[in-house]
Amino acid sequence: MKRVAVIGYGNIGKKVVEAVEESGDMELAGIVELLDIPGVELVKSIEDLKDVDVAVITVPSRFAKKSAIECLELGINTVDGFDIHEEIFNNVEELDKVAKEHEAVSIIASGWDPGTDSIIRAMLLACAPKGETYTNFGPGMSMGHSTVVKNLDGVEDALSVTLPTGAGIHRRLVYVQLDGSISFEEIENTIKTDSYFINDETHVKQVDDVSMYKDVGHGVLIERKGMSGKTANQKFEFSMSINNPALTAQILCSSARATFNQSPGAYTLIEIPVIDLLEGDREQIIRDLV
Amino acid sequence: MKRVAVIGYGNIGKKVVEAVEESGDMELAGIVELLDIPGVELVKSIEDLKDVDVAVITVPSRFAKKSAIECLELGINTVDGFDIHEEIFNNVEELDKVAKEHEAVSIIASGWDPGTDSIIRAMLLACAPKGETYTNFGPGMSMGHSTVVKNLDGVEDALSVTLPTGAGIHRRLVYVQLDGSISFEEIENTIKTDSYFINDETHVKQVDDVSMYKDVGHGVLIERKGMSGKTANQKFEFSMSINNPALTAQILCSSARATFNQSPGAYTLIEIPVIDLLEGDREQIIRDLV
Repeated sequence: MKRVAVIGYGNIGKKVVEAVEESGDMELAGIVELLDIPGVELVKSIEDLKDVDVAVITVPSRFAKKSAIECLELGINTVDGFDIHEEIFNNVEELDKVAKEHEAVSIIASGWDPGTDSIIRAMLLACAPKGETYTNFGPGMSMGHSTVVKNLDGVEDALSVTLPTGAGIHRRLVYVQLDGSISFEEIENTIKTDSYFINDETHVKQVDDVSMYKDVGHGVLIERKGMSGKTANQKFEFSMSINNPALTAQILCSSARATFNQSPGAYTLIEIPVIDLLEGDREQIIRDLV
Repeated sequence: MKRVAVIGYGNIGKKVVEAVEESGDMELAGIVELLDIPGVELVKSIEDLKDVDVAVITVPSRFAKKSAIECLELGINTVDGFDIHEEIFNNVEELDKVAKEHEAVSIIASGWDPGTDSIIRAMLLACAPKGETYTNFGPGMSMGHSTVVKNLDGVEDALSVTLPTGAGIHRRLVYVQLDGSISFEEIENTIKTDSYFINDETHVKQVDDVSMYKDVGHGVLIERKGMSGKTANQKFEFSMSINNPALTAQILCSSARATFNQSPGAYTLIEIPVIDLLEGDREQIIRDLV
């Protein structure tokens, strides 16, 4: 049994605990969370937990690297869902050094996008090297975009929903609940000209209670049309309709398992054999799935 | 530039040559084929070719292992599309020994099923460990089933088409062109009671010219509904509509590239990181796809 620490106990951390409980080869070592949560046994630091084999880091992306380094320096493997796209490769390089120095393994940018969607995009490129891939997200809430709006002056609560309009183009629907200090028109204009929204068709709606629009369902449609060798019109589609925090958490948990089969260093999910994500015996998995 | 030998010059071998020609990091070392084919430069043995790095084996499955062993013993990496499901794991074990002994790499059961479909099935199991996956094939020609019928007495030519009817259940449509020595009714009965057909709904049709029904298009729909942790109703679909020999050949060619990044031994596609299938620089691939 591998012992898993969960770092951060928000929407995703809670679901990671459930995924660990449902697995047959991992058990919970404990939960690290700075906030007190009534009825949940928590510690304040990874060093307060005993015999941790792997830490699943579910804190916001901007804190993930720091948290991973702390664990790796203790020789504990890590998995995170870091999703700031432009910084992923730099994080891999930085964590790779720390992981190797302490003979540990770090899997970075796990989850569904980046993560399993990245596996699909890589696999489809191997199937048809020339062509184009479109990743269409939603409909579903975008955490990153919601946070940007929530942090605006005059906004009490907010929610940004991503709607696919085809060919990897998206429409955004932003629900805002205002505190009355700034007019709706001014806030609408601030949102539409923010760098997070300016390139997409964005609609802002004032509502009385944003919580009435919260639905953790999400989805994706990945499409590729391309050429295999000299043969055109090879068409591929991958789609899913899922509970977002539950899927993210399950993939983080499966990635935690995969850390034990890699050489010391840091990896993204496309650098890991998919079999390593699975519970069970190699022979049986090959007999069942190949 | 890695030098690729193509062994067997049938439908798939021809398309492997095209895929190698379209790649930027591989070149053709030569074609090994026992039959003479007018206008094509061929050799009779892999030993007649110079500086071969990897051999892509496109001979029928029952000859693939023997061909792979010949190459591995020369220290040449191999890729095959071996597709006799029950024997895959045993072949992996046997070729693993030979490959390790000669410090070479063998990728076995590559192609789309087994192959990339196996990657999808493994990935979806990691996303939702409890649930069921259905693989629905077609509509498209089944080579294995066609060959069984072609080899029957009284049959001049034959074609077996697989049609999906949902939940991984298939209907088979068999076109037969007879030589007149045995009645249609007798042949129909032989087909329907053959172990290859007895478990499926099978329809046999007598036609004048089987070649009029040949279409190398094929497809698949893989569906999974399952639980991520304790959360139900996670739904996933992967589908494609493709030219079958072209896709098979492209995946064999991409797998040939992947042999150069593995430690000596034999592997199925789910044991290979998907990034290894791709041409280009690791950093750029991660920046583009993750």
